[in-house]
Amino acid sequence: MESLLDALQPGQRLARGVSRLLRTLDFAPLPEFVPSPGLRVDVAGLGPRGEIWVVECKSSRADFVSDLKWGGYLEWCDRFFWAVDSEFPAELLPGDAGLILADAWDAEIVRWPEESVLPGARRRALTRRFARTAAGRLALLADPGPGLAGR
Amino acid sequence: MESLLDALQPGQRLARGVSRLLRTLDFAPLPEFVPSPGLRVDVAGLGPRGEIWVVECKSSRADFVSDLKWGGYLEWCDRFFWAVDSEFPAELLPGDAGLILADAWDAEIVRWPEESVLPGARRRALTRRFARTAAGRLALLADPGPGLAGR
Repeated sequence: MESLLDALQPGQRLARGVSRLLRTLDFAPLPEFVPSPGLRVDVAGLGPRGEIWVVECKSSRADFVSDLKWGGYLEWCDRFFWAVDSEFPAELLPGDAGLILADAWDAEIVRWPEESVLPGARRRALTRRFARTAAGRLALLADPGPGLAGR
Repeated sequence: MESLLDALQPGQRLARGVSRLLRTLDFAPLPEFVPSPGLRVDVAGLGPRGEIWVVECKSSRADFVSDLKWGGYLEWCDRFFWAVDSEFPAELLPGDAGLILADAWDAEIVRWPEESVLPGARRRALTRRFARTAAGRLALLADPGPGLAGR
């Protein structure tokens, strides 16, 4: 297990802790979700009442500063959070987004963002995309080569 | 690969071929989906426009005859199909459901059912449940013991 963890990039280690947090909150986590072509979020979470959260994991100042598209995430979720580790200079982060303190094993919400409720049509489209992405990945894991391998 | 296949129950072998078929139709397949507490379907499929299909895999006459709840599946999908292999006595199956001929490697639709469009609220609830089920299974595969193992 530890060697698997060592293979993760710093941002992926944060995403692992964030996914654990989401699960404890009864949110189903989905890493590397693409809500819209050209936009990939680190972790999306789908809550029991259909709430959609987006969490961007930033492992360093450089990682944050180079991400010019973060404002674009807000319109794809009900709540948006940054996830950083305890070394991160948190004063860099805009104060109106949520903040999660994370490591590879765990995470906690230290600041809640305002909720910005998605329009119904967009929520439906995002939920469908989330569902198809997750089930598609499961199917690929269960049967990597339909029509190619196995026969 | 063949030894993995040998470990599957007959119905699961059909479900594997059905999942391949769904993928070729751009439907994301999800085995063992529970649309409603107490009801488990063999394979659910979520299409590109949000269509929800249910496929029940029947490996034998006994398997079919013992399933008294099939009428209950219809209200949880836009289209319902039976999937059977070439040995199955197809005359047992009600003529208004869809029919898929399957084996462990492939499947084809031999009879299309009428579409019975789901009400919007139910479709939304099912899509959300499908999404949370699929992402939950992925999360469990990626990290089997949050809070328990790994630290």
